[in-house]
Amino acid sequence: MGEPDALVVFTPSGRRGRFEHGLTVLDAARRLGVDLDSVCGGRGICGRCQVEVDEGEHAKHGITSSASHLSEVNEVERTYAAERGLAATRRLGCVAHIAGDLVIDVPAESQLYRQVVRKEADAHPIEVDPVVRLYYVEVEEPRLESPTSDATRLREALAREWALERLELDVHVLDDLQQTLRAGDWRVTVAVHDGRSITAVWPGLHEHAYGIAFDVGSTTVAGHLCDLWSGDVLASAGEMNPQIRFGEDLMSRVSYVMLNPGSRKELTRIVRGCLAKLTAELAKAAGVERDDVLEVTIVGNPIMHHLLLGLDPTELGGAPFALAVDESLRLRATDLGLPVHLGARVYVLPCIAGHVGADTAGMILSEGPHLGDEVNLLVDVGTNAEIVLGNRERLLAASSPTGPAFEGAQITFGQRAAPGAIERVRIDPETLEPRVRVIGCDAWSGEPGFADVRVTGICGSGIIEALAELHLAGVLTTDGTIDGALATRSARIVPDGRTFSYLLHDGEPRISVTQDDVRQIQLAKGALYAGCRLLMDHYGLERVDRIRLAGAFGSQIDPKHALVLGLIPDCDPERVTAAGNAAGTGARIALLNGAARREIEEVVRTVEKVETAVEPRFQEHFVQAMAIPHDTDPYERLRAVVPLPRRRKSSPGAKEGRTRRRAASAATRGRRSE
Amino acid sequence: MGEPDALVVFTPSGRRGRFEHGLTVLDAARRLGVDLDSVCGGRGICGRCQVEVDEGEHAKHGITSSASHLSEVNEVERTYAAERGLAATRRLGCVAHIAGDLVIDVPAESQLYRQVVRKEADAHPIEVDPVVRLYYVEVEEPRLESPTSDATRLREALAREWALERLELDVHVLDDLQQTLRAGDWRVTVAVHDGRSITAVWPGLHEHAYGIAFDVGSTTVAGHLCDLWSGDVLASAGEMNPQIRFGEDLMSRVSYVMLNPGSRKELTRIVRGCLAKLTAELAKAAGVERDDVLEVTIVGNPIMHHLLLGLDPTELGGAPFALAVDESLRLRATDLGLPVHLGARVYVLPCIAGHVGADTAGMILSEGPHLGDEVNLLVDVGTNAEIVLGNRERLLAASSPTGPAFEGAQITFGQRAAPGAIERVRIDPETLEPRVRVIGCDAWSGEPGFADVRVTGICGSGIIEALAELHLAGVLTTDGTIDGALATRSARIVPDGRTFSYLLHDGEPRISVTQDDVRQIQLAKGALYAGCRLLMDHYGLERVDRIRLAGAFGSQIDPKHALVLGLIPDCDPERVTAAGNAAGTGARIALLNGAARREIEEVVRTVEKVETAVEPRFQEHFVQAMAIPHDTDPYERLRAVVPLPRRRKSSPGAKEGRTRRRAASAATRGRRSE
Repeated sequence: MGEPDALVVFTPSGRRGRFEHGLTVLDAARRLGVDLDSVCGGRGICGRCQVEVDEGEHAKHGITSSASHLSEVNEVERTYAAERGLAATRRLGCVAHIAGDLVIDVPAESQLYRQVVRKEADAHPIEVDPVVRLYYVEVEEPRLESPTSDATRLREALAREWALERLELDVHVLDDLQQTLRAGDWRVTVAVHDGRSITAVWPGLHEHAYGIAFDVGSTTVAGHLCDLWSGDVLASAGEMNPQIRFGEDLMSRVSYVMLNPGSRKELTRIVRGCLAKLTAELAKAAGVERDDVLEVTIVGNPIMHHLLLGLDPTELGGAPFALAVDESLRLRATDLGLPVHLGARVYVLPCIAGHVGADTAGMILSEGPHLGDEVNLLVDVGTNAEIVLGNRERLLAASSPTGPAFEGAQITFGQRAAPGAIERVRIDPETLEPRVRVIGCDAWSGEPGFADVRVTGICGSGIIEALAELHLAGVLTTDGTIDGALATRSARIVPDGRTFSYLLHDGEPRISVTQDDVRQIQLAKGALYAGCRLLMDHYGLERVDRIRLAGAFGSQIDPKHALVLGLIPDCDPERVTAAGNAAGTGARIALLNGAARREIEEVVRTVEKVETAVEPRFQEHFVQAMAIPHDTDPYERLRAVVPLPRRRKSSPGAKEGRTRRRAASAATRGRRSE
Repeated sequence: MGEPDALVVFTPSGRRGRFEHGLTVLDAARRLGVDLDSVCGGRGICGRCQVEVDEGEHAKHGITSSASHLSEVNEVERTYAAERGLAATRRLGCVAHIAGDLVIDVPAESQLYRQVVRKEADAHPIEVDPVVRLYYVEVEEPRLESPTSDATRLREALAREWALERLELDVHVLDDLQQTLRAGDWRVTVAVHDGRSITAVWPGLHEHAYGIAFDVGSTTVAGHLCDLWSGDVLASAGEMNPQIRFGEDLMSRVSYVMLNPGSRKELTRIVRGCLAKLTAELAKAAGVERDDVLEVTIVGNPIMHHLLLGLDPTELGGAPFALAVDESLRLRATDLGLPVHLGARVYVLPCIAGHVGADTAGMILSEGPHLGDEVNLLVDVGTNAEIVLGNRERLLAASSPTGPAFEGAQITFGQRAAPGAIERVRIDPETLEPRVRVIGCDAWSGEPGFADVRVTGICGSGIIEALAELHLAGVLTTDGTIDGALATRSARIVPDGRTFSYLLHDGEPRISVTQDDVRQIQLAKGALYAGCRLLMDHYGLERVDRIRLAGAFGSQIDPKHALVLGLIPDCDPERVTAAGNAAGTGARIALLNGAARREIEEVVRTVEKVETAVEPRFQEHFVQAMAIPHDTDPYERLRAVVPLPRRRKSSPGAKEGRTRRRAASAATRGRRSE
């Protein structure tokens, strides 16, 4: 005492204050509101409050900072260092006392609120602030003179040490509370959910808390196991949705339920089983205990959402497509039979409308169109396309019935995006010869690495590229006809009944693009484009600032080919990008950040739902959008996108098949004569 | 309009107001805050709002009331009357419109807040205001243009029609919500728990809501099924607690759990099974659907409480007797495996201390010592005696280790209170001949009706009466010795080793009261009395205003004999009364009245717990209280209680066996010489 107070500056926050000698660094940080983590409440056990002294003269702050301005390393720190390791430059903030001026750096991993950088382009980092938190406390032992219960003394400790008051207590926590308190010699770690409920208690210091974000798709159920402290994804896994045996697509599953009363429970049972299996796999892969999984979040389309929750999806099979429930749901993991901690909670993101589900809510949360001024068009293509348009002013959402063609279904040689599927196509406009790339192999056909590749079919992105390239090569007319006249020029154009096919892969099996395939894609792209345009009409827009393509298909297709083919409205091609599994990322954000849940619940309430089925304009857009491309010249688009050397600009404004075909022939001839 | 407003007076409340013609009686009642029930929200369906016009001149109110001052009976009322019956004098308040001055009587059954009169003496009626309420609503149908979910539209209806906002929704309600709404043609009845949670939904009007109050005793589990609307008990049933096969008394069950790790779950399982069985029995007996049981309340001693909840009772087997949890618990009925509605809630009353459980909380709630100025002493005697002392100023509670003697255990011919057990004893002080009465027979021995009765043993109240009567007859000395000298006078006094027995029943089997029995009762009564005195010491009292004896034993024993024998401290004998199954009644009050739950939670927090084990004065009181009677002359007590003709007052102040024996002999001789 008697010494003047020390000046302490915390970096990177820059917060500063004068403190009496003898105060711990953790206490000083707390007084200044500096974000310095601690689970054990300053007992030198958890090591979360590690700091470093930034030694030297700090002209900016007018002080000389020295490691010697902290109390000497004491027994607590030595014990911690011996047991768990502590870098020489690091000190435990809860143990080290201020003994002079200091500049103290709080490393990123010592901050309670951290950020996780996402791997997707253009993505905001995720602020880690999970709903569940761990607190280490010392509970008073019971005494004859004070016959309070274990639960009461636990509460008292949480109030005393962490100012957590009026907590509810999960009933299952009581089961082992007595043993846990005694096993931990009255020192325990408590999981508190949402600042309200005690959901788990472990003896001693317990530092592990994990969560799983699930994206329940019609085809695939994917899960990401995350560390709730660091926010890191420790393991990811996917499983086929076992409901597939009751129908490939959503509507066939709904039909199955309608036709087989009682089957609903079976569909619910098996998809829950799938989540349970994934949970076990994820925990194993990440090397963590399933019992340390305390949080689960779920997204999914409305039908998957209903079936997972055990709700009848029948109403979603027909107008007015009434959801049983649209709000977000907070459940126990046990409600869904998930093999995680008994106190684990499940958060199911809200649905928006009968065809716009929690997956779309996840996409909005991930993409954040509501945060900025730019008008974003978000598109998640599956059996239906979920479309969101807008910005901070206004958000619109719709679902468009694209059908399963984009997923490779209803395509002659179509298949799901899996190894062996053609996913990339280039067609030489001169020779009309294709080059293809197949999932599972980085080489293009014709390159050395391609020789042994087994080609099994063509997936959604492959068929899009094939049609776009065929169109660019003049093989596919604006009205979607494979130009049989070109059969004379290339053996790739093959008569096929009264129409023609294009032989994409001359191997075993031979893989062709048929006229019927073109029609299927035309229908799908017409629906997709019409849905987008309908929302733009509602918003009063002719052009969007940015297009994000989400989901498996959206990530696989080349945005430029999508533009060429007219899947999506006009946009600066540089601003058409893939968003990855945005729905799943939304689930991960909701897993790691409690505020994000309130955010998406708020946003969802403001979203204007547009029902394509009742909008006459949808039909108009749809019919127009069948053409390829329907509004601008493909070569104009292409020029902006792909360098096209040695090609004359063909006649613009060709609006009709015959004209286009002639123009294409002319171009070909022109080329040939070079 | 244009007519002057009508004056309407409601009876019995006396509330009055002027209303425009055309307003319904229900609306007028609501504006005045008159308690007039309605489930259907004024649709003329539920018939809860029936009223009667009190016709005639009402000088007091200055009006002439006439049935013609209500609108004519209309179609809605005719339909109701045809379908469900309506007395000629009755009108539906929601349908009948005011058309002139009226005095309107609200019959008791049309009041939302009603009272149930309890059969116990001195008991306050129970205000019926249950935690769960039913609401009939009309939900909007879904439309393509407004794609909200069924759950959202249900919430909107509850907000619109009943001003119930921000309700939580049980997950299981969603399971059938779609079908229920459609089956009810969008008219449904909703159960709302605690004004916060939607726990059940039925199609159309649903008027049945029941609850069960359970009292889980070590020996018997009792349940009362109540109508949550009327408050009436529709059925009562009891079952042996099946845990008895793991130990007759509490401590032997705790020992069993300690010695057989893993057995705890079995004890939990079987007691829950017992509650489930009782639930089914009660529903059947009452003729109600189990699915209409929406509320359950539970009381029990700490060990039963813990075992029922699946908690380890081991800690309760030894100091410091730490409960796992003492606060009240709110569970789902499914948590305990009860076969009632999935949305049914369980409320477990709070425990007070390691030996003072939810049963004592129930007793406090039933007896209400905290409501008045009189100092009450509440005693519930089981294996332990739970003792509560105090008034609105201060409440003290303790548990005293009486042992099982009062329940007939450890008594030579002891048995539980069941048919065949001697429960009443009178001993002629002249002849020393007994008369007994047996459970299951109203006649006394010697009376004609007694001839065929099979006597099997003696229960707790029987042994108390026997000892008190023996003492009054001079057979039992103050230090608790059966006076062998009297063997010469009566063949009922029989040598038994080095001591003497008293032959109470000379039949098959012969039933005696042995010297050892006296010792057991002395120990038990010493503990009981010492516990009471200890609390009185703590309170600073020499005498209590009122003593209430609760529980099976407390209801069976004659309070006067209890006073004679010195089981309980001195009190005006007229103010020593039986309280019936006060714990069970407390459970019933908590079932029927939500405010009672908050009340008991509040009270329990203020109760001062006294731990007999650590109080030296307990031991002192205990030793002194072994004597019979220990502080005042038994004949003094008796004089105040029982007319004792033709008996000289014996020498007062006899403090020692020998003196007493002589005095008794002298009295006997005196009598004999008459």
